[in-house]
Amino acid sequence: MKATDPCVLVIFGASGDLTYRKLIPSIYDLFCQGLLPDCFAVVGVGRSGYNDASFREKVMPGVEEFANKKASLPEKLANFASLLYYCQLDTSNEAEYIKLSEKLKQVDGDCHTGGNYLYYLATPPKLYSIVPFHLAAHGLNKSGSGWKRLIVEKPFGYDLETAKALNRKLLEVFDEHQLYRIDHYLGKETVQNLLVTRFANGIFEPLWNRNYINHIEITSAESVSVGDRGGYYDSSGALRDMVQNHLMQLLGMVAMEPPTVIEANAIRNEVLKVFQSLRPLTPEAVAQNVIRGQYMASRVRGETHKGYRQEKGVPEDSRTETYVAMKFFIDNWRWGGVPFYLRTGKSLPTRVTEVVVHFKETPHKLFAQPGVVSRENQLIIRIQPNEGILMKFDVKMPGQGFVTKQVNMDFHYEELTDAYVPSAYERLLLDAMLGDSTLFARGDAVEAAWEYVMPILDGWKNDPNIPVHGYPAGTWGPESADKLIGNSADTWRYPCKNLADDGEYCLL
Amino acid sequence: MKATDPCVLVIFGASGDLTYRKLIPSIYDLFCQGLLPDCFAVVGVGRSGYNDASFREKVMPGVEEFANKKASLPEKLANFASLLYYCQLDTSNEAEYIKLSEKLKQVDGDCHTGGNYLYYLATPPKLYSIVPFHLAAHGLNKSGSGWKRLIVEKPFGYDLETAKALNRKLLEVFDEHQLYRIDHYLGKETVQNLLVTRFANGIFEPLWNRNYINHIEITSAESVSVGDRGGYYDSSGALRDMVQNHLMQLLGMVAMEPPTVIEANAIRNEVLKVFQSLRPLTPEAVAQNVIRGQYMASRVRGETHKGYRQEKGVPEDSRTETYVAMKFFIDNWRWGGVPFYLRTGKSLPTRVTEVVVHFKETPHKLFAQPGVVSRENQLIIRIQPNEGILMKFDVKMPGQGFVTKQVNMDFHYEELTDAYVPSAYERLLLDAMLGDSTLFARGDAVEAAWEYVMPILDGWKNDPNIPVHGYPAGTWGPESADKLIGNSADTWRYPCKNLADDGEYCLL
Repeated sequence: MKATDPCVLVIFGASGDLTYRKLIPSIYDLFCQGLLPDCFAVVGVGRSGYNDASFREKVMPGVEEFANKKASLPEKLANFASLLYYCQLDTSNEAEYIKLSEKLKQVDGDCHTGGNYLYYLATPPKLYSIVPFHLAAHGLNKSGSGWKRLIVEKPFGYDLETAKALNRKLLEVFDEHQLYRIDHYLGKETVQNLLVTRFANGIFEPLWNRNYINHIEITSAESVSVGDRGGYYDSSGALRDMVQNHLMQLLGMVAMEPPTVIEANAIRNEVLKVFQSLRPLTPEAVAQNVIRGQYMASRVRGETHKGYRQEKGVPEDSRTETYVAMKFFIDNWRWGGVPFYLRTGKSLPTRVTEVVVHFKETPHKLFAQPGVVSRENQLIIRIQPNEGILMKFDVKMPGQGFVTKQVNMDFHYEELTDAYVPSAYERLLLDAMLGDSTLFARGDAVEAAWEYVMPILDGWKNDPNIPVHGYPAGTWGPESADKLIGNSADTWRYPCKNLADDGEYCLL
Repeated sequence: MKATDPCVLVIFGASGDLTYRKLIPSIYDLFCQGLLPDCFAVVGVGRSGYNDASFREKVMPGVEEFANKKASLPEKLANFASLLYYCQLDTSNEAEYIKLSEKLKQVDGDCHTGGNYLYYLATPPKLYSIVPFHLAAHGLNKSGSGWKRLIVEKPFGYDLETAKALNRKLLEVFDEHQLYRIDHYLGKETVQNLLVTRFANGIFEPLWNRNYINHIEITSAESVSVGDRGGYYDSSGALRDMVQNHLMQLLGMVAMEPPTVIEANAIRNEVLKVFQSLRPLTPEAVAQNVIRGQYMASRVRGETHKGYRQEKGVPEDSRTETYVAMKFFIDNWRWGGVPFYLRTGKSLPTRVTEVVVHFKETPHKLFAQPGVVSRENQLIIRIQPNEGILMKFDVKMPGQGFVTKQVNMDFHYEELTDAYVPSAYERLLLDAMLGDSTLFARGDAVEAAWEYVMPILDGWKNDPNIPVHGYPAGTWGPESADKLIGNSADTWRYPCKNLADDGEYCLL
């Protein structure tokens, strides 16, 4: 286990929701587990008029509400609060950064943090390319006396061009190794466990290729609607919000070659190779193999749901997608000819993220029963909820003859009862303090992911014939998505198909 | 599902323990599930002086005690009893078989069983070659008016010579297709499920060979001692009692090539090929790779256990083995160079039968931690108890870095709650009525299995330097068995190593 250096975490956007609900509570969780460096402080930065004391008053209720209840040490709340400082300034005004420079000098001296500053951009995206320059103008980007690192929140760019521009800008004042582009999916334990499952076991990797795998499905369903985030969401949409970043990173973990070592650049090189091997999407492929949808007002299982266009901040004629399903290929030796399917959406029947590996049928059907369609083997890697692994395979039904039945062999992370499962933010904050960028996106990979999805964004903007399919809120999305997985008895896996019957989340 | 023909089951040895505890209760279980033919009767045959009524009185308490409680239909007990008949005769006296002939004529007429007779030899082995000849003398072996089938209980021969002689004898008066050599291990659901696991799934067979498997372990442990069966057991021993029949058949299922179809002869051809591919045991291999043991008086976990030589009917200087462990090879393309280990014994710490497939280590240890020995993947097929399948593989421990931990993914047959699991005897009786000999041992395979173990029997008899290792009753057998699995960090799997601590059967 590496040790963390003493450091100051400087949060831009300190009065915002992310700071209140995620960042400060996660830091508290790390604190309770003794994972923070002994010399440590947080400096919140923002336009709002707090001082150290009132900032503590503002954020501590968030700690009590959102921190991990199991690991909390209430007797240490006051100790923790004393690590928090505030610096009021207009982040878009370079001159005011002198205040930050002075505040940091003071805190750094008081807390013995050795000039190590970890900046966290929890601001609106337009500030991502402004704050770093203002920091630089005051010399706050210079390593030398302690390291300086910069965490950039999502979204990283709005399209390929803006992502490239942002990378260029950041690299003018920071080096790539100082940059930590956050993708909170990569901070999830089960996403990281994908690497272990594949590469620490002798049994999976021999099967993990075109010879044994028929197709792979990646689903990330949300049951919530856009709620009051309609204003932001309408300028983004599901492709930008979920596919280009989270699901592409997840795909990278599923499809990559074994890295030479478990180190940031070795892993990120392999992820990049996956993105570079994606078969480019032609306009025809976009029209045929990418389905977009938007949820419509509905009444499902006795509940009334708003349609997307009725959400606050969403134009009445919005064509922004709240659902994407797509089929695509990775043109390399491992995956040649294996279709990948990806699906994400809001207002779906449940919240679930999972990878489903569909293995090929057996070459000889020894136990085939007339009229019975056998299902091929599946390996399901559940990212959330009920994190775990599920293997669907056939056994013999007890009794006469050889009648087979598909059953589940499963492992759930919660069985590791002794283990504290850190949240994605805890993990990523700690990694950034440790200087481990394995679970952050590298600039070239972010650009490669944007490059891949650009033909979709272009097609949707320019081709009026590509429909926006409506789907009733609370259902599994447009029916035309089923046609993507054609030519076979296969369909998407519906992890809670029974939901309508009993209203229960049900693991099939 | 095939239908059973009307038939009469004729049990020789009708007043014995097997009839009382196993056969009649199993037939009752079949009856309660409606699996018996509509026209059906049992004729018990024996020297004891019962008539139909007193035979029913004798065996019905066994039904109430030993039949499957869950499936029992108490209101049908009287109906069932009315299917039972008795014919008193001296089975070693040919002349008396006229009585059986007449009884069968009467029952066959009354019950409309169409001359289909299924004979069951539940007698002492010396009668196996006598009863069939006496049946033949009265024409009771002739198909023609209804089929005639003969079930032969274990043991089938005492060595290769006697097994060959018995086969020759039986084939003088019955055809091979009329013969059903019972091996109640083959009747076990989980043994049959081995075929389904291997050949109905796309994920296992690609791994099931020398490229991915390091070694395979087959254990059949009994916690009971020989008890009051010492007289019989001392002339047999663990090799004859367990290895030559049950464990060899189990090995056949584990190691066989895919059969062309799921039919008796196709499967039995493949089992035979496994036996024929076993690397013959030289005298050196017997001395080095086969360990025999005998349990000694002990005090384990507060309980006193008798030694084998103190059991009733066992000579004080007996050298009969109550434990065997061995290492051997199958010389074919699939298994070349893969060691197989087999272990069985009485008075071991628990009752368990399982196959453990040890996969090879990963070719590149990405997650190796200094000082931590990683365990390779294992697939454990549990035959009894807790029938099921267990996969041991590595996952990531939650938290910093990539620390791995071996966990279990499992399936238990009891999860198929809706399924009635028939006992081995139910299954085998029904199969014999159906004329399906898949789960019975064929003559050539029985001889091949004897041929394989003969060098062991010969070595033990002739080489005074091969020791009989003592082991304290209630422990895992001689320590020298551990040396069989040498040259590696591997050892036998101890499914209840923790037993000493908490006295509980514990699935590790």
